[in-house]
Amino acid sequence: MPGEFVLIDRIRARVRARADVVLGIGDDAALLRVPAGHELVVSCDTLVSGVHFPAETAPADIGWKALAVNLSDLAAMGATPAWCTLALTLPDADGDWVDAFLDGFLELAEQHDVALVGGDTTGGPLSITITAHGVVPEGQALRRDGARAGDEVWVTGSLGDAAGALAQWRARGPSSAKLRHRLDRPTPRIEAGLALRGLATAAIDLSDGLAADLGHVLAASGVGARIDLGRLPTSRTLADHFDEAQRWPLQLSGGDDYELCFTAPASAAFAIEQALAACDVTATVVGVLVAQPGLHFTTPEGDDHVPSVAGYQHFQGVH
Amino acid sequence: MPGEFVLIDRIRARVRARADVVLGIGDDAALLRVPAGHELVVSCDTLVSGVHFPAETAPADIGWKALAVNLSDLAAMGATPAWCTLALTLPDADGDWVDAFLDGFLELAEQHDVALVGGDTTGGPLSITITAHGVVPEGQALRRDGARAGDEVWVTGSLGDAAGALAQWRARGPSSAKLRHRLDRPTPRIEAGLALRGLATAAIDLSDGLAADLGHVLAASGVGARIDLGRLPTSRTLADHFDEAQRWPLQLSGGDDYELCFTAPASAAFAIEQALAACDVTATVVGVLVAQPGLHFTTPEGDDHVPSVAGYQHFQGVH
Repeated sequence: MPGEFVLIDRIRARVRARADVVLGIGDDAALLRVPAGHELVVSCDTLVSGVHFPAETAPADIGWKALAVNLSDLAAMGATPAWCTLALTLPDADGDWVDAFLDGFLELAEQHDVALVGGDTTGGPLSITITAHGVVPEGQALRRDGARAGDEVWVTGSLGDAAGALAQWRARGPSSAKLRHRLDRPTPRIEAGLALRGLATAAIDLSDGLAADLGHVLAASGVGARIDLGRLPTSRTLADHFDEAQRWPLQLSGGDDYELCFTAPASAAFAIEQALAACDVTATVVGVLVAQPGLHFTTPEGDDHVPSVAGYQHFQGVH
Repeated sequence: MPGEFVLIDRIRARVRARADVVLGIGDDAALLRVPAGHELVVSCDTLVSGVHFPAETAPADIGWKALAVNLSDLAAMGATPAWCTLALTLPDADGDWVDAFLDGFLELAEQHDVALVGGDTTGGPLSITITAHGVVPEGQALRRDGARAGDEVWVTGSLGDAAGALAQWRARGPSSAKLRHRLDRPTPRIEAGLALRGLATAAIDLSDGLAADLGHVLAASGVGARIDLGRLPTSRTLADHFDEAQRWPLQLSGGDDYELCFTAPASAAFAIEQALAACDVTATVVGVLVAQPGLHFTTPEGDDHVPSVAGYQHFQGVH
């Protein structure tokens, strides 16, 4: 069984350089250059086996997802990803597992030119903490507190696929590989976040479900929202496997979509569609912000069809 | 039992601001300003209960130590600490435990004006991952790869106290509160690291023991060292509890000292003593670098008194 330093060497050998990394893995700390006129953007997320992913998830998928959920936070800020640290706690120092983990982790890292610059490997129950770093021109970050009454509420892509996969996994019945792929390999909306700078008034990534995450934007901005459930963007695969009454709770509180939810004045709608089309991302207006605090749902069939929803709570786990 | 957001609010309420934190806890990511002409310094360390500290350690001590080991890495780079993220994985969402943890964590954070700017709380076996951020003027960081043959090898403070405490804890016999304090509340040598910029040719912090950590400097710099065990700085308390033959292995491979080991030409010795005295830190020359690779120990009684040593391996745990 290789020890900690063997694992670190194994990781270090596969890491690519970036011009702004003065010193990467292999000293007490990394030395990095933030470009002039930019702010540093830092996010940190932990994934715990059995809580944030089913324990039997393939290591490459775990590697992808652990980075994806962090890049998704950078996307929601409109930041360009740059570097990350990786803290890997493993039940045993299994080099093959680490190699497979890196396959998924580095595949996504290379897509976004993210350099792994440091971290730690320790023994213990499987968990992964990544701190991701990006940069954004001063004053241009997308925040949660800029939304205004009258703004439209948008979401990218489609909602509920990941929660659909989790529901199928829990039921241990038939399952869709397409839905499962959305759970295991979420797409951080980096290009969309960059495209939305100067257009969106607020943004957040959908990790805990639309209800909870939009709720954070509303609280930070001091506004309310009316969301039309009939307009929630739905993949054909999700619609094939779940009817509307099953689907809405998945879409509102299922979590794990890692789409962006953002707000913008109606006057920006055309520019937003153009900007997102240029990076091949679809987006849908699902509602409107109102001055009155609170989150209200409407359905095409009337308000008594609104399901009760609650945000994802990590401490409940996936079991 | 409070959920994740309650814990985060609890943490957020106790965190102090810094002028260079544009946006702290409460958005998808933090927004931070790195001063012009400086490099960003990033280190990341995980502590796992039962591996890096005895499971019964007081939560305030765990909080202190989790931050201390990360600040120690910044110290070894000659960096000024600025911000950190905190990923806290807890068996249950125990608000009282978190408050006690924060007592120790924030006590040290405030000593060094470190702002907690983000993180994550998750459910699972107790572990803490901190990513600490500092800044250093461009090109002035202390690295591992600048040591040269002929340089003297120094260590700050005294060695072996923490390992002595761990040995006493394992033996379940008499124990010294002074030694235990050094294990639970290590002092990151931030001021010493700053004072050594421009004087030391290389530096590392002693987390895994002098043998292993000095070994990293030798490997990075392509040199060897001769260390005189008779010169290892030893606290009176350690000497009271362990004789020389027991002490040397603790001092060489015990780990957890979080002193700095650094190298410098003999011509810098007077300036180093003055600079460290100004920040109330003692330091001792324990050996010399040689061109021939390898780490050689000598004792006042002759070379056959040299104990066999090995660096600390995290996967062995403390049990």
